[in-house]
Amino acid sequence: MNCLDDIKWDAAGLVPVIAQEHSSGDVLMFAWMNREALKRTIELGEAVYWSRSRGKLWHKGEESGHIQKVHELRMDCDNDVLLMRITQQGHEPGIACHTGRHSCFYQRLENGVWTATEPVLKDPQTIYSK
Amino acid sequence: MNCLDDIKWDAAGLVPVIAQEHSSGDVLMFAWMNREALKRTIELGEAVYWSRSRGKLWHKGEESGHIQKVHELRMDCDNDVLLMRITQQGHEPGIACHTGRHSCFYQRLENGVWTATEPVLKDPQTIYSK
Repeated sequence: MNCLDDIKWDAAGLVPVIAQEHSSGDVLMFAWMNREALKRTIELGEAVYWSRSRGKLWHKGEESGHIQKVHELRMDCDNDVLLMRITQQGHEPGIACHTGRHSCFYQRLENGVWTATEPVLKDPQTIYSK
Repeated sequence: MNCLDDIKWDAAGLVPVIAQEHSSGDVLMFAWMNREALKRTIELGEAVYWSRSRGKLWHKGEESGHIQKVHELRMDCDNDVLLMRITQQGHEPGIACHTGRHSCFYQRLENGVWTATEPVLKDPQTIYSK
């Protein structure tokens, strides 16, 4: 895939990826991809990331069922960041965060304190039990 | 500021930051902050990044006039990524990209080819001439 060669991969061979919900515009999460992850994402039409903590490919939703269907892939002006418009599947409203929340960005700075603002939609223990 | 201590800064002392337009939900750009940049951002209410290429603080809009007024700061579940809701000032519609476009994410993957999709709103040569 020539489009992979256009990306300026970082020293670790990764590119940062922002996942934005297609229907709402909400930014749901941020993760990383290597070449293989992006290749699989494009082929599958579903988000496949590179898990830096686990050191392996991570087909988002493989355990939780919370698959991210990809509508659109965009690249920034420096060719080193990707933006993906997705539909977060498996629950309504979509759950992208491992805490059971809609978005990973649920801590808002309020009077100098990071404050959890979004409700837990599903108990994380039940998300990963299958 | 205690809120700075809650962030898991990376090995280079930086945190990735996503800038999202408050009014439209459009993701406009992606950049990095160090402690000082985030401290100034909070104090000013305007985006101050750390420019990795120039190795210095970068008050976005200091040359172009395209200041980013900050409405809200959010942190993700791992405490290592920030999401900022901003108003992109200095032009209508807002210009976040140094190419004179609304968003830095103007290259869309179409049939395997990254294709520029958004119009240039202002000639970059005139943006930085003041």
